[in-house]
Amino acid sequence: MNTVIVLGADGYLGWPTSLHLAEHGYNVVAVDNLVRRRWDRECGTDSLVPIRSMSDRVRAWEHSGGGSITWRRLDVCDAEALSLLIAETKPSAVVHFAEQRSAPFSMIDLAHAAMTQTNNVIGTLNLLYALHEHAPDCHLVKLGTMGEYGTPNIDIEEGFITIEHNGRQDTLPFPKVPGSFYHLSKVHDSHNMHFACRIWGLRATDLNQGVVYGSETDETARATGLATRFDYDTIWGTVLNRFCVQAALDQPLTVYGSGGQTRGFLDIRDTVACIRLSIANPAAVGEYRVFNQFTEQFSVLELAELVRDARAAHGLATEISHLPNPRVEKEEHYYHAKHQHLLDLGLEPHALRGTLLESIISTVHQHRSRVNTGVLGMPNVDWQMGGTVNWTQRQQRGSRDLSGRRASNRRAETRAGN
Amino acid sequence: MNTVIVLGADGYLGWPTSLHLAEHGYNVVAVDNLVRRRWDRECGTDSLVPIRSMSDRVRAWEHSGGGSITWRRLDVCDAEALSLLIAETKPSAVVHFAEQRSAPFSMIDLAHAAMTQTNNVIGTLNLLYALHEHAPDCHLVKLGTMGEYGTPNIDIEEGFITIEHNGRQDTLPFPKVPGSFYHLSKVHDSHNMHFACRIWGLRATDLNQGVVYGSETDETARATGLATRFDYDTIWGTVLNRFCVQAALDQPLTVYGSGGQTRGFLDIRDTVACIRLSIANPAAVGEYRVFNQFTEQFSVLELAELVRDARAAHGLATEISHLPNPRVEKEEHYYHAKHQHLLDLGLEPHALRGTLLESIISTVHQHRSRVNTGVLGMPNVDWQMGGTVNWTQRQQRGSRDLSGRRASNRRAETRAGN
Repeated sequence: MNTVIVLGADGYLGWPTSLHLAEHGYNVVAVDNLVRRRWDRECGTDSLVPIRSMSDRVRAWEHSGGGSITWRRLDVCDAEALSLLIAETKPSAVVHFAEQRSAPFSMIDLAHAAMTQTNNVIGTLNLLYALHEHAPDCHLVKLGTMGEYGTPNIDIEEGFITIEHNGRQDTLPFPKVPGSFYHLSKVHDSHNMHFACRIWGLRATDLNQGVVYGSETDETARATGLATRFDYDTIWGTVLNRFCVQAALDQPLTVYGSGGQTRGFLDIRDTVACIRLSIANPAAVGEYRVFNQFTEQFSVLELAELVRDARAAHGLATEISHLPNPRVEKEEHYYHAKHQHLLDLGLEPHALRGTLLESIISTVHQHRSRVNTGVLGMPNVDWQMGGTVNWTQRQQRGSRDLSGRRASNRRAETRAGN
Repeated sequence: MNTVIVLGADGYLGWPTSLHLAEHGYNVVAVDNLVRRRWDRECGTDSLVPIRSMSDRVRAWEHSGGGSITWRRLDVCDAEALSLLIAETKPSAVVHFAEQRSAPFSMIDLAHAAMTQTNNVIGTLNLLYALHEHAPDCHLVKLGTMGEYGTPNIDIEEGFITIEHNGRQDTLPFPKVPGSFYHLSKVHDSHNMHFACRIWGLRATDLNQGVVYGSETDETARATGLATRFDYDTIWGTVLNRFCVQAALDQPLTVYGSGGQTRGFLDIRDTVACIRLSIANPAAVGEYRVFNQFTEQFSVLELAELVRDARAAHGLATEISHLPNPRVEKEEHYYHAKHQHLLDLGLEPHALRGTLLESIISTVHQHRSRVNTGVLGMPNVDWQMGGTVNWTQRQQRGSRDLSGRRASNRRAETRAGN
C-alpha cells in the first residue's frame, strides 16, 4: 500500500492536502499535535469558516466515500514518537507542514522567536534522522517559503544559482535574506535538509511556497464538515483573505506602507496539486531539489485593487487605506522569481482574476456574522517593537511583562547585504 | 569603564581572549557555564595541558598583575540571566564563543545534533534580544567558522558576494554549504544575526575562523596556572594538535583519506589579536560584517608533512598513514578564500613554518605522559553511521541504545548544489 504521511494535517493546507492525496489513491496518515488550535486561543483568533475536530473531519470524509485517512495525534518535536511512526508505517513520502508558520507570531518577542525556531528546526531534524534510520528511500516533501529569498535585486532562481566569479563557476544555494524569525527558521531547515541529502543520500523536495489564497478545494467542498480553516487576522491571516473580510464589512482595505511589496501567490487548489505532483515525481536518491511554488506575482496594492474592482462590478464601493508598515521591508523593489519546475511536472494554474476572487468574497460574505472585528482591528506585531496581541493568558502564567521593555525604535539601514 | 563580556571564557580560545583583552585595558567579564568540562567527562577526553578551575585561573591572573577580570558562571541558554547580565553590565562589546564547537560531537546522533543546534542558535538568539533590549549600541563579536562556506569551486569572499545575473546585480550573503550539524548551527546564527542588524540596527562582526593551532599566547605563558586547554582527541582536537601528539608518541600521523582537504589555519596568538582588532574597530550601527579569520591555507597532508619535516630536522622519523575518511567531504577540491579585512585592520600574522611548530611539539613532549592513548586511538565519529565514543554514562542514564540502529551506509552524491 502506498502510504503518505501528512505532518501538520490539521492546518489550513495540511487538511486539504490530506483529502486530496486520499482522493488520489494514497493511504494517508494524517498527523498533528493540534497546537494551531491552542495558538488561536492564546491569540484570541479563530477561523472564519467553522472547522470540526480532526476525528469528526475524518469521519465526515469516510461518510463522503473518500479514500483512506488514518488520524494520529503526535508532535514532531517528540523524536521517539516520530521515529516509531516512521518505522511502523514505512511511508513512500512524508509531506511536512508541521511548523509554526506565522511571521508576525514569530516576531512578538524572544519566547515566540525561540519557540518558532526550535519547533521548526528541531522538528525537521527529528524527521531527517527518523527517515535516515527507518525509511531512507522515503521522499520528503517539505514546505518552505518564497520568503526565504527576500527581495534581491536579481532574478530569483529555484533554490540554486550558477555563479560566475573571478573566472570560475559553481552552482550553489541561492543566497537568502529572509524577513522574520519564522522565515529564518525555514532557511535553517533548507540548509539542514540539503546537508542530510548530501551525507545520507536522502531524497527531498523543498517547496518554497508563495502566499496562498482561497478557502476551498474540490475535496473540502464535498461536505460542510470537510471545510478547512480561513484566517483573516493580522497574525495568521494572509493578505488577500484579510482584504476580502474587510471588504465584506465595508471597511477600508488596509495596505502596509505604499503597497509596492511584491510576492508570489497561488490558489489553495494549486497547493494541493503541487504536492501531489511532487510526490508522483519524486526526487532522486541523494537529491535535494527546490521548487518555487507559486503561480502569479502581485504587489499588495494590486491585490487590494483586484478586490476593489471585483466589488465594483457589483456596484459596491471599496476604500483602500495605507497604514504605517509594522514590518521592516522594502516597499518598492525589483521582484522576479522563477517558477517553472512545477509547470514542467504538469501543474495547470488557477488564475486569481475571474471567478476565484468572487468565490472567496462569497465565502466570506456567507460567514461574515462570525467576523471578530476586535481581531480584525488588532494592533499589528511590530518588527522592531515586538508584539501587542492579547497576552493576558501568558502574563497570568507568570511570563514577563512585555510592555515597556522595548525602548529601541531606531530604524537603521544595514550597510552589508544590500 | 570599557566593559567587554567574553561568553565561553572557559574554552580553548575564550580564556586566552579574556586575558588578552584584560591585558589591553578592557574590564573583562568572563562568562561560562563550564559545560565543556562536563563534555570531557562524557567523552572520556581531557586537555593534554592541565588547566585550573575558572576561579583559580582568575586568581592566578590577578597574582600575575593582570588587568580586571570578573568571573561569572552563567548559561547563555538561560535567557533571563543573560538579559540581566547585559542590563547590569552595559558592555561596549560582547565576544561570543559560548557554543558547542565540535563537528564530530554534533554528528554522534540526533541528541547531539539537536543539542548543538538548540544550544548554539537559541543561545545566540537570546543574546541578540538581550542586546536589542538593553545595550543596542553594543558591538557583538561572534565566532563563526570558515566551515560555513564548505569548499565551493569559486573564490570564497568575506561573507558577501556581488552576483551578476541576467543583466542585473546584487551583493548578497555568500552561499553556504557546511559539512556538519555543528557547522550548520553557525550558518543559522549568521542568518539570524544579519537579520537582527537589519531590523534592529544592531552592530555585529561575524568572525569566520579557520582551524586554530598552538597552545600559548603571551598572556597564558606568564604563569603555569594560566594555561589554556590543548585537545588532541578525535572529538575536540584540531588536526595539527593531534598530529603533534601522535608524533610525540612515535605513532603514525593519521590523515583522513587522501589528505587533500584544504582549509584556512591560524595561530592562537592571531585569534586573540583578531578579536582585539575587531573590538577596537567596531561595526557601524546596523552593520553586519564578516571577516574571514585565518592567515594561511594548508591541506591536511601538507600539515602532516610539515610536522614530519620539523622532526626530521632533529633526526626523528615520522610515518604518515591514510585512514578511511569518516566524514563526507571532498578530498581534492579548489580552495581559495579571501582574508583581507583583518590584515587591513593591522593584523600581523604568525606563520606556521619556523619556530612555532617546534614550540607546539615541545609543549606536547613536555606533557606526553598525560596522553590517553585510548582516546588518541578512539574510533572516529562517522558522518553516516553516527558516533562510537564512550557512551556508558549516557546509556546508564537511560538514553536509547545507539548500537545497531544505523543500518544505512549508502554513500550518495547529491545532484543539487555541486
